Amino acid sequence: MNAEHTVRSFDEDLKTLVKAVLRMGGLAEAQLANAVQALVRRDSDLAGQVVAADARIDALEQEINDHAVRLLALRQPMAADLRAIIGALKISGDLERIGDYASNVGKRVLVLNQLPPARPVASIPGMSRLVRDILNDTLDAYGTQDLHKAVEAWSRDEEVDHLYTALFRELVSCMMEDARNISACSHLLFVAKNIERIGDHTTNVAENIHFLVSGTPLRAARPKGGGIGDTGDRL
Amino acid sequence: MNAEHTVRSFDEDLKTLVKAVLRMGGLAEAQLANAVQALVRRDSDLAGQVVAADARIDALEQEINDHAVRLLALRQPMAADLRAIIGALKISGDLERIGDYASNVGKRVLVLNQLPPARPVASIPGMSRLVRDILNDTLDAYGTQDLHKAVEAWSRDEEVDHLYTALFRELVSCMMEDARNISACSHLLFVAKNIERIGDHTTNVAENIHFLVSGTPLRAARPKGGGIGDTGDRL
Repeated sequence: MNAEHTVRSFDEDLKTLVKAVLRMGGLAEAQLANAVQALVRRDSDLAGQVVAADARIDALEQEINDHAVRLLALRQPMAADLRAIIGALKISGDLERIGDYASNVGKRVLVLNQLPPARPVASIPGMSRLVRDILNDTLDAYGTQDLHKAVEAWSRDEEVDHLYTALFRELVSCMMEDARNISACSHLLFVAKNIERIGDHTTNVAENIHFLVSGTPLRAARPKGGGIGDTGDRL
Repeated sequence: MNAEHTVRSFDEDLKTLVKAVLRMGGLAEAQLANAVQALVRRDSDLAGQVVAADARIDALEQEINDHAVRLLALRQPMAADLRAIIGALKISGDLERIGDYASNVGKRVLVLNQLPPARPVASIPGMSRLVRDILNDTLDAYGTQDLHKAVEAWSRDEEVDHLYTALFRELVSCMMEDARNISACSHLLFVAKNIERIGDHTTNVAENIHFLVSGTPLRAARPKGGGIGDTGDRL
């Protein structure tokens, strides 16, 4: 009886952990959406809110960490349970980074709003939408432990890389056209890179889902080289 | 007797884990040194070696991961032992990223070697040397569990940020001077950013050392805002 109670309560503990990770993912997704909206609208208030809200994501990561370490110490889980906890630790680490990158976009917007508008801004929302779609699918896959969906989301990172490469070229062309665009476009290079990195971390999340659901790594067949995304352009 | 044996052997297990992390750190440090040497000498062979050698760091991380998870499962450690294992997991994650960034510098060198040389390259080795110094001290602190040294290394990340900001400005100026510099300088922007990010991850390592040695987080007093490093320049 007592053992059964312990088991049930451990399941509850795990569910709480997964829910916290999903909440963190939802926040990170919203941060990216808001940062890009702030960019397009040149809205410094919204950008400032994004920067400030990053602390909530960091706090959630700390909670998840503490909870996971407590579970490891108290429950001494094995096999799938152990993987679920290590997975939550790792996924929350990636989501924290995603939050960081979104917040960095927010900081760039604050700088960009001091500069004249640059045309390539118009290409950012498309790339961001794709990354958010993939992140959203990945989080769904985590919530439902859906291996197939995780792999499908993971394989779409290549599209992100293509969009990023196109954007990189557009930004360099824009700088070459007129030296007055250089400052703004330099910051936009990093905005684009930040969004591309969010895609990379989403890929990591998908890989971790694969591992925690199946017990085997997905890394072997990684869809791309090593996360640089734009060394293809010999400009 | 048996219990003592188990204890002793667990200590051995932990030492093996720490040594693997230190080896990984040494490799990551060497990768950064080689990548920057390849940049300065325009040496594509060396750059290619750096890119290829990243796989060894990734493999070491996987080994550390597997070892750590096995220890968690088999030994069910508590308190300081648990922190040591979680610490090794986290530190190896940061070292893997450091390796990634060094390898990205190598990839940029391969692109840069197709382009005319750009003057600001000369400012990269100084920044890289500082980051390597800090990484070296941080790894020493990990090997000796030296809290004081870890905090000291951690606090030097601010110097890195200043060098990065200066370099960012230099690169933008160089692009403005002559549009023919724009391609090379765009790639150098990312080289500089990669090295600055290596500094950030080194900071994370120092924070993890603090936690695993003392059981309390260092994050509260982080020396800087949020890892963007160059939003100060309203160019």
